[in-house]
Amino acid sequence: MKRIEVIHGPNLNLLGEREPDIYGGATLADIDDALQRRAETVGLRVRCRQSNGEGEIVSWIQDARASADGIVLNPAGYTHTSVAIRDALLACRVPTIEVHLSDPVSREDFRHRTVLAGAVRGRIAGFGTMSYLLALDAFRDILASR
Amino acid sequence: MKRIEVIHGPNLNLLGEREPDIYGGATLADIDDALQRRAETVGLRVRCRQSNGEGEIVSWIQDARASADGIVLNPAGYTHTSVAIRDALLACRVPTIEVHLSDPVSREDFRHRTVLAGAVRGRIAGFGTMSYLLALDAFRDILASR
Amino acid sequence: MKRIEVIHGPNLNLLGEREPDIYGGATLADIDDALQRRAETVGLRVRCRQSNGEGEIVSWIQDARASADGIVLNPAGYTHTSVAIRDALLACRVPTIEVHLSDPVSREDFRHRTVLAGAVRGRIAGFGTMSYLLALDAFRDILASR
Amino acid sequence: MKRIEVIHGPNLNLLGEREPDIYGGATLADIDDALQRRAETVGLRVRCRQSNGEGEIVSWIQDARASADGIVLNPAGYTHTSVAIRDALLACRVPTIEVHLSDPVSREDFRHRTVLAGAVRGRIAGFGTMSYLLALDAFRDILASR
Amino acid sequence: MKRIEVIHGPNLNLLGEREPDIYGGATLADIDDALQRRAETVGLRVRCRQSNGEGEIVSWIQDARASADGIVLNPAGYTHTSVAIRDALLACRVPTIEVHLSDPVSREDFRHRTVLAGAVRGRIAGFGTMSYLLALDAFRDILASR
Amino acid sequence: MKRIEVIHGPNLNLLGEREPDIYGGATLADIDDALQRRAETVGLRVRCRQSNGEGEIVSWIQDARASADGIVLNPAGYTHTSVAIRDALLACRVPTIEVHLSDPVSREDFRHRTVLAGAVRGRIAGFGTMSYLLALDAFRDILASR
Amino acid sequence: MKRIEVIHGPNLNLLGEREPDIYGGATLADIDDALQRRAETVGLRVRCRQSNGEGEIVSWIQDARASADGIVLNPAGYTHTSVAIRDALLACRVPTIEVHLSDPVSREDFRHRTVLAGAVRGRIAGFGTMSYLLALDAFRDILASR
Amino acid sequence: MKRIEVIHGPNLNLLGEREPDIYGGATLADIDDALQRRAETVGLRVRCRQSNGEGEIVSWIQDARASADGIVLNPAGYTHTSVAIRDALLACRVPTIEVHLSDPVSREDFRHRTVLAGAVRGRIAGFGTMSYLLALDAFRDILASR
Amino acid sequence: MKRIEVIHGPNLNLLGEREPDIYGGATLADIDDALQRRAETVGLRVRCRQSNGEGEIVSWIQDARASADGIVLNPAGYTHTSVAIRDALLACRVPTIEVHLSDPVSREDFRHRTVLAGAVRGRIAGFGTMSYLLALDAFRDILASR
Amino acid sequence: MKRIEVIHGPNLNLLGEREPDIYGGATLADIDDALQRRAETVGLRVRCRQSNGEGEIVSWIQDARASADGIVLNPAGYTHTSVAIRDALLACRVPTIEVHLSDPVSREDFRHRTVLAGAVRGRIAGFGTMSYLLALDAFRDILASR
Amino acid sequence: MKRIEVIHGPNLNLLGEREPDIYGGATLADIDDALQRRAETVGLRVRCRQSNGEGEIVSWIQDARASADGIVLNPAGYTHTSVAIRDALLACRVPTIEVHLSDPVSREDFRHRTVLAGAVRGRIAGFGTMSYLLALDAFRDILASR
Amino acid sequence: MKRIEVIHGPNLNLLGEREPDIYGGATLADIDDALQRRAETVGLRVRCRQSNGEGEIVSWIQDARASADGIVLNPAGYTHTSVAIRDALLACRVPTIEVHLSDPVSREDFRHRTVLAGAVRGRIAGFGTMSYLLALDAFRDILASR
Repeated sequence: MKRIEVIHGPNLNLLGEREPDIYGGATLADIDDALQRRAETVGLRVRCRQSNGEGEIVSWIQDARASADGIVLNPAGYTHTSVAIRDALLACRVPTIEVHLSDPVSREDFRHRTVLAGAVRGRIAGFGTMSYLLALDAFRDILASR
Repeated sequence: MKRIEVIHGPNLNLLGEREPDIYGGATLADIDDALQRRAETVGLRVRCRQSNGEGEIVSWIQDARASADGIVLNPAGYTHTSVAIRDALLACRVPTIEVHLSDPVSREDFRHRTVLAGAVRGRIAGFGTMSYLLALDAFRDILASR
Repeated sequence: MKRIEVIHGPNLNLLGEREPDIYGGATLADIDDALQRRAETVGLRVRCRQSNGEGEIVSWIQDARASADGIVLNPAGYTHTSVAIRDALLACRVPTIEVHLSDPVSREDFRHRTVLAGAVRGRIAGFGTMSYLLALDAFRDILASR
Repeated sequence: MKRIEVIHGPNLNLLGEREPDIYGGATLADIDDALQRRAETVGLRVRCRQSNGEGEIVSWIQDARASADGIVLNPAGYTHTSVAIRDALLACRVPTIEVHLSDPVSREDFRHRTVLAGAVRGRIAGFGTMSYLLALDAFRDILASR
Repeated sequence: MKRIEVIHGPNLNLLGEREPDIYGGATLADIDDALQRRAETVGLRVRCRQSNGEGEIVSWIQDARASADGIVLNPAGYTHTSVAIRDALLACRVPTIEVHLSDPVSREDFRHRTVLAGAVRGRIAGFGTMSYLLALDAFRDILASR
Repeated sequence: MKRIEVIHGPNLNLLGEREPDIYGGATLADIDDALQRRAETVGLRVRCRQSNGEGEIVSWIQDARASADGIVLNPAGYTHTSVAIRDALLACRVPTIEVHLSDPVSREDFRHRTVLAGAVRGRIAGFGTMSYLLALDAFRDILASR
Repeated sequence: MKRIEVIHGPNLNLLGEREPDIYGGATLADIDDALQRRAETVGLRVRCRQSNGEGEIVSWIQDARASADGIVLNPAGYTHTSVAIRDALLACRVPTIEVHLSDPVSREDFRHRTVLAGAVRGRIAGFGTMSYLLALDAFRDILASR
Repeated sequence: MKRIEVIHGPNLNLLGEREPDIYGGATLADIDDALQRRAETVGLRVRCRQSNGEGEIVSWIQDARASADGIVLNPAGYTHTSVAIRDALLACRVPTIEVHLSDPVSREDFRHRTVLAGAVRGRIAGFGTMSYLLALDAFRDILASR
Repeated sequence: MKRIEVIHGPNLNLLGEREPDIYGGATLADIDDALQRRAETVGLRVRCRQSNGEGEIVSWIQDARASADGIVLNPAGYTHTSVAIRDALLACRVPTIEVHLSDPVSREDFRHRTVLAGAVRGRIAGFGTMSYLLALDAFRDILASR
Repeated sequence: MKRIEVIHGPNLNLLGEREPDIYGGATLADIDDALQRRAETVGLRVRCRQSNGEGEIVSWIQDARASADGIVLNPAGYTHTSVAIRDALLACRVPTIEVHLSDPVSREDFRHRTVLAGAVRGRIAGFGTMSYLLALDAFRDILASR
Repeated sequence: MKRIEVIHGPNLNLLGEREPDIYGGATLADIDDALQRRAETVGLRVRCRQSNGEGEIVSWIQDARASADGIVLNPAGYTHTSVAIRDALLACRVPTIEVHLSDPVSREDFRHRTVLAGAVRGRIAGFGTMSYLLALDAFRDILASR
Repeated sequence: MKRIEVIHGPNLNLLGEREPDIYGGATLADIDDALQRRAETVGLRVRCRQSNGEGEIVSWIQDARASADGIVLNPAGYTHTSVAIRDALLACRVPTIEVHLSDPVSREDFRHRTVLAGAVRGRIAGFGTMSYLLALDAFRDILASR
């Protein structure tokens, strides 16, 4: 069974209590549960981790070379500035789908810029928890066709 | 059964022969067939149309108020400049998912800017034909939960 | 009697249901009625048309060379990008008053820029339906003094 | 009878001799006469004053809270930089119409930016003396409908 | 005999009466006549059409895949904003020469930017009617060498 | 006893009625009372004045060379543009603390820029009336250590 | 007794030896001592920590939800780029005062921009060690009035 | 004898004590004395005044229409922002020479921009007191040749 | 017979060996030969020179006042920065056609800007050697019609 | 007697025939004659040279270390881009006065920027030939006071 | 023997497999071996470490105050944004040479900006592994001359 | 023996007397001597020349195709603007190392931009004379490995 590494970026551990009008009421545990259920449905194995540290996320992406067939990455606040995460994605070449709960381009100006462009397979934004689930749907087909 | 209006923007009728290294080899007919099949699977009714005209797309979005429960919109070249399409989406309030075959932010500079931000429910980009199919998956859940 | 061509730009046909907190509750028919009544008061003949198409608006402006003594134009979403409408106004030289229901400079950044500057006789913005009526008042005096 | 405060900004006392190709040949006294006549016609009482000082204009706007039902303001050279006038308008909440003899956006670049956006009820620009008269027309209806 | 599609963009139908100090006194019919005569001289067949609509121009470019060996395109006001026309040119791959009567970079700022760069074979600007004729001269050699 | 000159910039005389959601409900008299009480507590003598005029504020700053040991300045709308106030502060060299009721960088874009940077001893922003009182606390220690 | 979490950002552990002309000669231990003494005076309990890591600071801010009634944050070099710290502050909703030893806007250009704007209760900058002490003064009143 | 109005802008009354490394040690009285002596030499009559107020400077420029044959203006801090002074100069059409003690373009960025460009006869900058004297030399010849 | 001065800018002497994928395989001698042949065909006399020096090109343009009826100029790397060449063209008023082998706007960003705009009669870009030949065609007609 | 090196930049040899509405009708020989006469009056020795070459001007500035006590430099088209001339002035430390016949900031945008700022003793612009003569006046006093 | 701390930034542990067309085929172990050999040759002692974490790099730089005579730093993805690393370098004052395998200014736009400018002794870029070795060569001479 | 062409750009002939705090006290002759000695050490033949002229430098780079195996280029003031030098480097394809005595990015803003990026093999900046010597070290290895 294909393995998917789900990496939640900074502050996503606070989901449910953090600005619910923007991010919804689901907690990170709720999302991880939903991801496990959807993974079973589409025949994938999924591991979910969260980190507030840019360096740790870089290292997890590097590790995915050996441990995963795909990455679902919500880079959160690092989307807009982290050249290091971009370089990790380019170096590892594990297919990666970038997800966002809300659509960054409809928020503050500094969230409109992404340095990850061109380093990911695709982007899904604005669907709340469903953004993650659609990424698994996508991986089912992407990994099947390889 | 819920109805989805699929609107393909300018030049998408040339898919298959247009820059296949960027857009893939599938024709628009191929995509529409895939959409019909996926629509059946997820229990939606779908109508697909293509237009090169900004005004015509604006009118189709307006018509969707009466004829559809959701819109899947690939605005193509109008993504970056059409305030008129943005205003149509804001006026109609039919839930809309913006899709792109490739990820605009990884291409020319003038494709990085979107004026549709905040006027769509979500954005799915970079998955080729699958971008459309994931949008139907999303609508299945969005319309179910209403 | 002097003839005035009123051209409503894209999405104005949705007035009344479109973002009423910004544009008010009057429909386009209400505005056209008010325009007809005010036209009688000030001794002008008025024709009102709406289009979502940039090209159609260009053509109507061109036609006004033969059919009208003045144009009241609400370019809506084309205000900010349409060089073609600008060129039509410069070519036709029919005196034109640009009207807006709300004041574009108090809205999103991309609405602050107008490419029509210098191509119109004057601009009236922010008065809702009254923006149109004031334009007729203005034409009464402008056309009288010619 | 409703009272309107007309505030002419810097250098408008030179009208008639100042760049007549841009501003026309009418003097400020001519404009004030026309305003008095139109005020009688539409049933308003009007007081006209001119100042070259930013601080004095701020104070007059503040005074209008007690002495006026509406303000007609031609901020002239302060349109583009005076945050203090903007703050005065926001603080006083007396309905204000911004008028310009010529259309600032068709002149030098530094005249395209306004810091008054969102702080006025509406803007009328490009009609010469008539810009002021149309503002009285507008106030007749605005104040009637309150 | 090789066929050339000449596409005149918005407002070019007004040539002769439109800002003659910029565009000269020749009408569009004069230009089309000159094009027919030059076409005979250089052994090409030419068809001339004009449209004010962005979408219609996109469609004509698409049609040229079947009906023409080359396109002479004066995109006029769409030069600076139409990503849709750019995409049509890239998709069709019919060799295209962009022509302008005057040199856009010597006019307003918003005319300095072109989104067609890289999508056309070459650009000829500033020669009035002769811009078109030089394009036919160029096609004589381009098509001969294929 | 050390003397502190408190200078309130434009529109601060309207506090309490001006945008209370941003500035709070305290009037300028309330603030001046609180300043007098705090001044007694920390052993300073304080004089409070308000002006809408940029030139008057410049002159008061100049006068402070002779009459004060420190300045508490709320430049309000002049924060963002007044090079003249900046030059007055640099010329006088009386230690000055810039205070703001709300934090300018969390408001409109044109409030993010300050030309006073480098001309003041320190900045305190966002605490409402308390911003002023903290400035007196600061002066107690600054003037003690001289 | 109310608890205040003091978080010193990167390189503040080098205070005293780092660019003393900008930051003064006090060491971080000196500052922490002064903070403890002032905390006793104003009746607050204070804990001081320093970190060079963006992720660790994010985590400490998150932890403050349970362990503190207020945060005094000197984000140092992360002030200008860390969207992650901003998101942490917005998510935690613990009242936070941002302090700086020197005034960032009077230094290099890249220090003028802050992404923390709107995410903190107030900002105190330019007073050296006293910036921290004034923050405690502020918290005494902020927490008293709750 | 021709009359020259010398207008010193804000803070120039502090010359001699204000940043002597930039502006030199001469006081404004010293400069005015030097101006009187040079005026006698070149056969001009000169009046010198200083103001901190933008509006007052505007009014003095306006008055010069009747009272002077030329203006020597050191706009100081208003050089970079005062559209009102620019408009006064354009309206009055009294030949004006702009002088600066130091060269603004070699100082802070916000001093590089001037809104007075095109509204003055010439500019002399960087010579300290001599900048004023050279302006009188220039007026001797300018007024002689009229 | 009319005389045309052909001026090749810097590095064009390396044509044929310089980046042949951009500039083609023809050497400068090949181009000069083609120019001589085409000149004979269209009845013009042509002189071709190449220089790497900005000053030398300025001087050649100046000399053309006496020695030529038209200039064909490929400014190459000086297109984007040379105000001196621009001034030479404006001063000499010999009709000039700017040519480029490739289209600068489809290359690096710094090649998009031209300071020659408005100083040349027309521009021909993107046709390789033929760009020069079309310029001769154009001069045949331009000089005939004088 | 003190020696002054006058360096005329590119295209100034065309004065009198070059855009006389901007630069006046005097030829360079006229200016050099006027300079010689004024030099005699103020007791200076002057040498005048003109070059179109950036490198030659750099070398002349370098030579002035040995041969001159001051430089009068009209950098013309090199004002806006020549870092090499700037570096030459900074290296040579011969006092230099920059002169311009017209005021660059009142012309095209690319003439508003100068890279010579801070490298010259002062700037005199907008007085036509008199700009040069005032520079000699200035040097009389500058060199006398050394 | 002098000690050099070599700090490899994020993702450099992937060298050899990461984008070999840009970074070459050598692994980080290969580089460290080459550094040890060159260190012996030039008489230096070298320690090599790699980290993905910005905070960890900051701490290592701080530690180098006690443990090293020089730093060779390849900041990789942190070059363009890390104010914290800049502050660490300024605070520690250990001479530092910045190295890059490829030349950042020849890559994506966001790699052109460095915030480390002025905080390092020198920069060596574009030589692959040799960039590091040249830094050791440089330190041999820098440390010898102290 | 491999031959290296050393090209010193404008004003480098003044080294030793030019701004010694930035560039050090060594003269150009000192540097050339050091280069000759180092060249002997590393087994290369070196020729050193200096020019103030952009065109001459272009020509020397072109000549290096025949006469050298590598170029050491200090473009000095031409680094930031010379597209012509860039084009010469791209055309000649002789491996080139760009050197700078000081690090341009730590100086004025206009020195941060380089148009030579991507046209050189590598860049060495900030080491004074040693920048040149390190370039020879680099060429020893580069030319050995070919």
